[in-house]
Amino acid sequence: MRVLGIDPGLRNLGWGVIDVSGTRLTHVANGICHSDSGDLAPRLLSLHRQLSAVLERHAPDHAAVEHTFVNKDGVATLKLGQARGIALLVPAQFGLTVGEYAPNAIKKTVVGVGHAAKAQIDHMVRLHLPGVKIEGPDAADALAIAICHAHHLQSAGKFEAALARAGAGRK
Amino acid sequence: MRVLGIDPGLRNLGWGVIDVSGTRLTHVANGICHSDSGDLAPRLLSLHRQLSAVLERHAPDHAAVEHTFVNKDGVATLKLGQARGIALLVPAQFGLTVGEYAPNAIKKTVVGVGHAAKAQIDHMVRLHLPGVKIEGPDAADALAIAICHAHHLQSAGKFEAALARAGAGRK
Repeated sequence: MRVLGIDPGLRNLGWGVIDVSGTRLTHVANGICHSDSGDLAPRLLSLHRQLSAVLERHAPDHAAVEHTFVNKDGVATLKLGQARGIALLVPAQFGLTVGEYAPNAIKKTVVGVGHAAKAQIDHMVRLHLPGVKIEGPDAADALAIAICHAHHLQSAGKFEAALARAGAGRK
Repeated sequence: MRVLGIDPGLRNLGWGVIDVSGTRLTHVANGICHSDSGDLAPRLLSLHRQLSAVLERHAPDHAAVEHTFVNKDGVATLKLGQARGIALLVPAQFGLTVGEYAPNAIKKTVVGVGHAAKAQIDHMVRLHLPGVKIEGPDAADALAIAICHAHHLQSAGKFEAALARAGAGRK
C-alpha cells in the first residue's frame, strides 16, 4: 500500500510518499512543489501540474492532506485555501479518496503529543523512515501526514478485520 | 470577444458568459455549478468537472473571478478559498489569463456605486443584457463580473489604441 501525504501551501506545497507493508513503513520519495509570486491563476496551474506529475510518477493508493490552520489573518487563510483546493483536487482526479487530518492529530500520531515542535516532527519522521533524505520542512510535514494516514488506515483495517472475525464467530 | 465571469462558492459556483462587440454586450449563457455536502475532495472534483464543461462548451476568450470576501470566520474563508482555487485553475488550464475584481469594483462598474444591493445588481445586469434569463443570484453576480471585465478590457484596449496612435504621431 502506497500513501501520499500533502502539506498544502501556495509558495511551497510539500509532498511525501511512503510504502506500507504490515507495520513496516518505507520511504519512497518526498519533495516540494514551488510557485513563485505573481498572478494567482498561473501559480495554481503550476502547482496542479507539479502535483499531478508526482501522482503519475509514484501512483499512490491513498492520499491525505493537512487541515489548513485557520487564523485571524483572512488574506493568508484565503491563499492557503486556494492552494489546499488544488491539493485536494489532484488526488481526487486520480480516483483516490483523500483523508484530512488536523495538525494536532498528525503530531499526536507521529510524535505522541499534540503540541510538538517542528524539530521533533522532523526527528520522528527520520526514526520512522530510516535513511530518508528530506527536501525541507514542508516535505517533512508531508511525510508526517503520510505516516499518520498509514496508521489510521491500519487501525481501520484491523477494526474491519476484527468485525469480520466477530461476524464469522456469530455464524 | 467572449468573456466568462465566475462567482466562486463551494455549494453554488455561479458562472456567466457574454459576447462583447464594440460597446455592445450580448448574453450567451449563465448557470450554477452545484456541489452537495460531503467530503471536500469529491466536491472540488465535481466543481472542476462542471466548470471545465462550461469552458469546453462556450469557449470564452477571457475570464474573471470575484475576489472572495475575507471575513473573520476563518472556516468559511477557507471553504471559499478552496472553491476559488478551482475557479482560478480551470480557466488557466484552458490557456486564459484570469482577471480578479473586488466586489466593490464590480458594483462600481456595473451599478455606478461601490455599495449596491443584490437587487440593484440583478436589475443592472438585466439592463445590460436585455432578455436574459438568470439562473439565480450567483449567476447574476457572475454576469456582473463578466460585464465588469468586458468594460476593463475595452478601457485597456482604448488605452493601448491611444498609445499606438500617439506613437504613430511621433514618428
